[in-house]
Parts: sequence; C-alpha cells; structure tokens
Amino acid sequence: MASLVESFFSSETAPSNLDVSLATTREFIQFHLKENRLFCFITSGGTTAPLEKNTVRFVDNISKGTRGATSAEHFLNQGYAVIFLARRMSIQPFTRHLQLDEILDSLSDGTIHDNKVDFDLGPKGKKIFSMIEQYKKVKEHNLLLKVDFTSISDYLFLLRGISQLLSKCEKRAFFYLAAAVSDFFVPAAELSEHKIQSRDSTQLTLKLTPTPKLIPLLSKEWAPLSLLTTFKLETDPSLLILKAKRAFTDTGPNHRVVVANLLHETRRKVVLVLSHEKQHREIVNSLESGKEIEELIIKELAQIHHDYIAESN
Amino acid sequence: MASLVESFFSSETAPSNLDVSLATTREFIQFHLKENRLFCFITSGGTTAPLEKNTVRFVDNISKGTRGATSAEHFLNQGYAVIFLARRMSIQPFTRHLQLDEILDSLSDGTIHDNKVDFDLGPKGKKIFSMIEQYKKVKEHNLLLKVDFTSISDYLFLLRGISQLLSKCEKRAFFYLAAAVSDFFVPAAELSEHKIQSRDSTQLTLKLTPTPKLIPLLSKEWAPLSLLTTFKLETDPSLLILKAKRAFTDTGPNHRVVVANLLHETRRKVVLVLSHEKQHREIVNSLESGKEIEELIIKELAQIHHDYIAESN
Repeated sequence: MASLVESFFSSETAPSNLDVSLATTREFIQFHLKENRLFCFITSGGTTAPLEKNTVRFVDNISKGTRGATSAEHFLNQGYAVIFLARRMSIQPFTRHLQLDEILDSLSDGTIHDNKVDFDLGPKGKKIFSMIEQYKKVKEHNLLLKVDFTSISDYLFLLRGISQLLSKCEKRAFFYLAAAVSDFFVPAAELSEHKIQSRDSTQLTLKLTPTPKLIPLLSKEWAPLSLLTTFKLETDPSLLILKAKRAFTDTGPNHRVVVANLLHETRRKVVLVLSHEKQHREIVNSLESGKEIEELIIKELAQIHHDYIAESN
Repeated sequence: MASLVESFFSSETAPSNLDVSLATTREFIQFHLKENRLFCFITSGGTTAPLEKNTVRFVDNISKGTRGATSAEHFLNQGYAVIFLARRMSIQPFTRHLQLDEILDSLSDGTIHDNKVDFDLGPKGKKIFSMIEQYKKVKEHNLLLKVDFTSISDYLFLLRGISQLLSKCEKRAFFYLAAAVSDFFVPAAELSEHKIQSRDSTQLTLKLTPTPKLIPLLSKEWAPLSLLTTFKLETDPSLLILKAKRAFTDTGPNHRVVVANLLHETRRKVVLVLSHEKQHREIVNSLESGKEIEELIIKELAQIHHDYIAESN
C-alpha cells in the first residue's frame, strides 16, 4: 500500500501553491502552539479527476463543501484554530451566509454617498450581524487559515504536507476529513495532452485508476497521535454502516470516528461510527430546532477530542 | 440524426424546472415583442454528465460561465432583451463584479446601525457604482430573464423549449450559444442506480455515448429564421479553425458565426469564423485597453445581426 502511495507522489505533479501553503501553515501552527490552542484540520469540497493535461473535462463530485464550511464556524466557536483545506470556489465559512444576488439587490436599493452604500441586512439581519461579529474575532485572533485545491493530486499533496506539519501538535490536533475525495483518477502518464475529441457515434471509453488509500498512512505515519475523523457518504442505506465500519481497516488507533450519512439526509441525520464503541451514535436534527446539524456533531466530537487528550498514553 | 434526437428526448427525463421556465419565457417574449425589442438568447457555463441516477459523481467541464455572463451585460448595453440560460451556480451578469470575501471584509469594517451597514465600495467603487446603475435599469425594464440547468439533459430540454418559443421572434432573435455542452453522456437507461463502488485495485471503465447533435435541428427546424452564433474551444492550435469551420456542417443558412478560441487565450483573442465570408475576423484585446473582449465581440455581432435583419428575405 505504502509503495502505491510513493509511486503516486513521484509520478504526479505537486500543485503550484504547495510551497507557499506549507510555509503559511507552518507559521500558523507555530503561532497557535505558543497560544496553547487546539487545532482542527478540516478538508472540504470535492476533488476533480482531470481527463486531459490541458484540462477541459474532469470527473467531479456533487459536494459543494457545505458540511466543511459550516463545521469550520462551529469548531471556531469551540475555540479551535482551524486549517481549512477546501476546493477552490467551494462554500466558505462566513461568506456562506451571504448571497450575491441578495447583496446586489440590497446595493441597488441603497443610497450611495461618498463611495459608500447604506446596505440593508434584510430579514436575515440578526443572523448576519452575529456572523460578522464572530468573523471579526476570528480575524483579530488569526484563527482561520484557508488553503485551496482543485484536483485530486493537488489535494493529496496538500493533505500529506499539512498532516506532517500538524503531527508536532500531537493529540492537540483534530483531523476532520470531510472532503469528497475521488475514488478514481487518471494517472498523469495516461492523460491525453489535449481536449479529447468527439467523433460521431463513437463511444468514449474512460479507464480510471483507483486512488491510492492515504488514510492508513496518514493515521499510522504522518500524524500518528492526532485524532482522526473521516466521512462516508452513500446513497444506498443497506451499505452505509458496513462501509463506515470498513473505513477503520488498516488505520491506527487514532482513527476513532467515521461520520456516515445518506446523500438525501445530509442536513437531517448522521451516524457517528466509533472504533472504540460497539454502539454507534445517531445525531438527528429537526427543522424546528433552528440549529445546524454541524453544531450538534461538533459538540459531540469536541467532547471525544477532550476525552482523547485526557487519556493516559 | 433527427431520430437520435427524438430518442434522446423520449428516453431522458425533463428537468423539474422545465414547465415553469418555459411559461416565464413565453411571458417575457410576449412582453418584449410588444416593446419591439431585439432578443438575445445566451447559454452559459458547462453541462454535467452524471454517472449515477442518485448522482454523486459526474463528468464536468472547466467552463465557469465568464464569457456568457460578461456578454449578457454587453448585449443589455446594446438594448437587447436577454434570456440567460446558465449552469446553476455559474458566474452571473452583474454579481460577477462582486466578490463575497471582499464584501464580508467591507461589512466587517462597516458601522452597523438599524439593520444597516455602511458598505464601502472600496477601490472598485466607480466600476461597481456604474454596474449598479445598469442593473437598476435592467430590472426596471425587465430586460433579463434567467433560467438555470445542471445536467446535459436539463440543458437540451430547455434549449429546445426556449428555441421553439423564440422562433416566433424570427430574425429579431439572436442565439449566442456559449455554454460548454458535454460531447458525451451516459444515457439514463445505462446509469447505475447508486454511487459506483470502488474496489481495491480494480480499474473503473466508463462508457460514454456521444451527445446527439442538436444544433442542425435547432438551426433548420426549431428557430429557422433566427441568427445563430455558436462557440468552439480547443487547446490544440492546429485544430481550432478546422473545427470551427466544421461546425457549419448540416446547419442552415441562419448559422452565420462561430466564435473560436484557444483555452489559454480566452480573455485576449477570439476568431469570428463566418459562414458567408472566406476571411475570418480576429478580435484581439490588449490588457491596456481597459475593456473586456466581450465588448468588442458583441459590437461586431450586433452589427452582423443588424445587417441580417436588413437583408431582404
């Protein structure tokens, strides 16, 4: 398994933002280690699997990054310093509460004076107001670091690099790997140079290679003391728990939680499958609660992290 | 060819927004026919080709919809009523000038009083101010109708429906088909019901079917008097003009223009390949011009449309 991963990293190209992103991450970690913070590393959004070197087409995933972006705010609320590794253009913490078309209408209804517009926060005013207050604090204390990726290979290079940097935080680092990572990709050596041409009435056959499994390596070698939470999304109810349990195969004792859910229940119900408990825990949110399900998930996970830190080694 | 198209429409599922969208489009057309407007039908953004019925994965295209959204504003500037059929979440006219993260920072730097924020337009102030002025006029005169799609089949149903409605505008309708339409898709009958499962070290083979060519039918039957402009994007310079010329095969005399460009030159250079002129026209924009290349393209096309209307039948 490890050799598959090694050959992946030696044959694929590192993303152009790798060095700068890792340098910034290193600084961010130094800064908050001094402050004695807990760290949360969130990955969010879907990775692409390009079909051409000069990429026009790619295989993608429906993830828009809502789970990751929402969770980031709730981890920040719990006092964590958050590293947010997300798909470029995916849903982002804080800005997710703003809609461009609503803003445009507010702006066009406002009065403009001296390069300023009176901007009406509208019916969502109270919520946006408290979001802005939280955002100000996060900025002031430098609590959120964003790094972005597009393709599966960008993602894996950044995942490895950031994990290795975080390993020095040991148990204080919590990994929340919510990104929807392609199970398949086309290796660089097999990519067509230019846009694949269509020919009348000829089928296109694509051969995709399974993505090497990095979580076992991450768990056992890159960050062996940090607590890992991974995710499992399925559409078939009969597979969900089975596949979530299977996710613990080959990972170390720091891989404690799989957050599992069905596609159509994403906002309403998740199951926490735990490596160290027979019983899994259901988290159900009702529409009437006025809460986001991520608030409930993160409270539960922060407690698990707290207990994990308190365990004697 | 026509029978391939018929079998496509009889075997694929119409999008849920089809009926409402066509009813709204019909009203929009009635309204502006009375006002004696010219119509521009813009398609924008990439279509997806889902790989599962309960879609988790799909083949996509890098188009973000910048060309279409930018062009919409320039057509509105030329006095057209615009029907904008665009990929859900793609770049939109007017809002494309706003960045959520900049807005969040402006909001968080502003002073909040009575549910309002003093919103500083920042260094882009002048540009945003004039954009807001244009947007107000467009709203006041009801000049922009937006319809959205996600998958290739959504797109084709909406393209057919809107084209047939616009056919009554005859020469007054200008079609600007900038959407990046998948050349391949998986027919509904061949789609896996649930998320395709990955199995260790087994390749995934995908068989994709060529998308039926609808432009010949659109050109000859659905809207035979309206002026058609289509688009060709390539990454290989040696293919660009060849493929652009080939786009006129099987289309009617109303298909007059192909706007062709190389992926890496999108913002800087396009070639107008014309069915009725031997010489093609290059449009080159310099960074220093302070203009968007779409302004130049649309001026040229509006003139071609004007001449087309003036031709005796």
